[in-house]
Amino acid sequence: MYDALIIGGGPASVAAGVYAGRKKIKTALVADKFGGQSIVAAEIENWIGTKKISGVELASQLEDHLRSFEDVEIIDDLVEKVEKDGDGFKSTLKSGKIIESKTVLVTAGSHRRKLGVPGDSEFEGRGVAYCSTCDAPIFKNKITAVVGSGNAGLEAVRDLLTYASKVYLLNRGDKIAGDESTFEEINKDDRVELMNNTEVKEIFGEGMVKGVKLLNNKTNEESELKLDGLFVEIGSVPNSHIVKGLVNINERGEIITNSDDQSTSCEGIWAAGDVDNGRFKQNNVAVGDAIKALLSLYSYLNKQK
Amino acid sequence: MYDALIIGGGPASVAAGVYAGRKKIKTALVADKFGGQSIVAAEIENWIGTKKISGVELASQLEDHLRSFEDVEIIDDLVEKVEKDGDGFKSTLKSGKIIESKTVLVTAGSHRRKLGVPGDSEFEGRGVAYCSTCDAPIFKNKITAVVGSGNAGLEAVRDLLTYASKVYLLNRGDKIAGDESTFEEINKDDRVELMNNTEVKEIFGEGMVKGVKLLNNKTNEESELKLDGLFVEIGSVPNSHIVKGLVNINERGEIITNSDDQSTSCEGIWAAGDVDNGRFKQNNVAVGDAIKALLSLYSYLNKQK
Repeated sequence: MYDALIIGGGPASVAAGVYAGRKKIKTALVADKFGGQSIVAAEIENWIGTKKISGVELASQLEDHLRSFEDVEIIDDLVEKVEKDGDGFKSTLKSGKIIESKTVLVTAGSHRRKLGVPGDSEFEGRGVAYCSTCDAPIFKNKITAVVGSGNAGLEAVRDLLTYASKVYLLNRGDKIAGDESTFEEINKDDRVELMNNTEVKEIFGEGMVKGVKLLNNKTNEESELKLDGLFVEIGSVPNSHIVKGLVNINERGEIITNSDDQSTSCEGIWAAGDVDNGRFKQNNVAVGDAIKALLSLYSYLNKQK
Repeated sequence: MYDALIIGGGPASVAAGVYAGRKKIKTALVADKFGGQSIVAAEIENWIGTKKISGVELASQLEDHLRSFEDVEIIDDLVEKVEKDGDGFKSTLKSGKIIESKTVLVTAGSHRRKLGVPGDSEFEGRGVAYCSTCDAPIFKNKITAVVGSGNAGLEAVRDLLTYASKVYLLNRGDKIAGDESTFEEINKDDRVELMNNTEVKEIFGEGMVKGVKLLNNKTNEESELKLDGLFVEIGSVPNSHIVKGLVNINERGEIITNSDDQSTSCEGIWAAGDVDNGRFKQNNVAVGDAIKALLSLYSYLNKQK
């Protein structure tokens, strides 16, 4: 029986693991890889205290830090399901292994919805990007496009306008899905060009993105667009299925947390990072919130004694 | 007129400054030094992603990161008072300079609490110390004590063990307030002696500290302890006076924030880090919350346009 089970290997999980290690909490941390979503980033410039670091390098530093604490057992596996079991929890791993724990911290992150077209995976981190707050500065004086006209897409256009020479907004339908006021404001800029009824069919390039093949889904006309960067903002899917039925989850699939201490609707379960309903999906935010969760979980364990 | 004024130079301020720089928000950041309170730590082992770093080194990394953004003007001064001024704010600096800004982010941290007993002020810098990184080497082969068993107190004991012949840990209660793992580690050293239920009533000496008068708050017994040095680690006072009267502040002097986005009771003012009412005073928590504040401030500025 562990005192705590930490689910995931991103910055939030590692932060919680480090604090669990320092508090000497008997912990199992289940992850099949480390670093989280930003592992694909060529250059991270907003990991506070570090001017520049690659996603792979950050992942390795995080893993090193975590592995320096002997009270945290790292299990190379995936958690598939968490269930109540008496006062604690019983979690089933992909391997079939069962983990029993008094508490659970869900820091399982989310995964971005992808276009599912040729070139999609090949050019990820090579012009295809999913975080404008992180990556807009890379596209200074470059030609870019954003797929998706929801608020995330519109914010990505705004972020890109700080740097790029051109921003196409590729919209599948013929209405803006996000806030009209935001669209009006960004659309005042001559560099923004809205393309309605437009679907990306292929991403092409040589090492780096060079452009996309488009289909107008009204006229069925095909066309090509030369691009240096493509930001995909068509939603993300939180990895909350693990605790479905146990905790309250919102309509976006995010675990609803109390932002004071990251507790959930189920006593003994906390959540932090991209899997929760926090507005700001950033590495350092996930870290801070995971530490709150772990310290709150620690108080809870001490009270149980 | 700046879009944002960031007050302070600790991890929270730097995090906000980095995000402001990347969003190209016209920002003034006023600080007379960088690194925050942990600048005094000899060894930080819970700065996520870094196994070990000194407070001085971390401060220098933070300052370097911040200075890589040209849209953030760093002003070497202290903010004394923030006042409403039309839709924005007018802030007075120690130098007399006035800063006008549309928004304010208070990341001014907190400062050390003193014992408030006879001898307290008289012997400051003459045996009474608040910075073990700075002052531990003075006490080579000397008898010392640390007041307070939080993480700061435990770290002070660790620092002193590099030099001192004896380190008493004076604990008001009967439980260690900081990390159990840190306590176990330092307590392995024969020179460490924990004294529970112990309060300092007076500091005495002749030019330099010679000892302290103690009270056992359980038995009411009084005693004296011969000492050459006394390190005081009993907590902090938030630097919230800067915005007194403008925002709601709790009984501990902490600025009350909405933990979703770190907004305060005054539109246009945000707060994060040790100056706010968050339960968890940790470097990485301050960083995460400051990023939430800055991104919320950024949305606010965009809506004002």
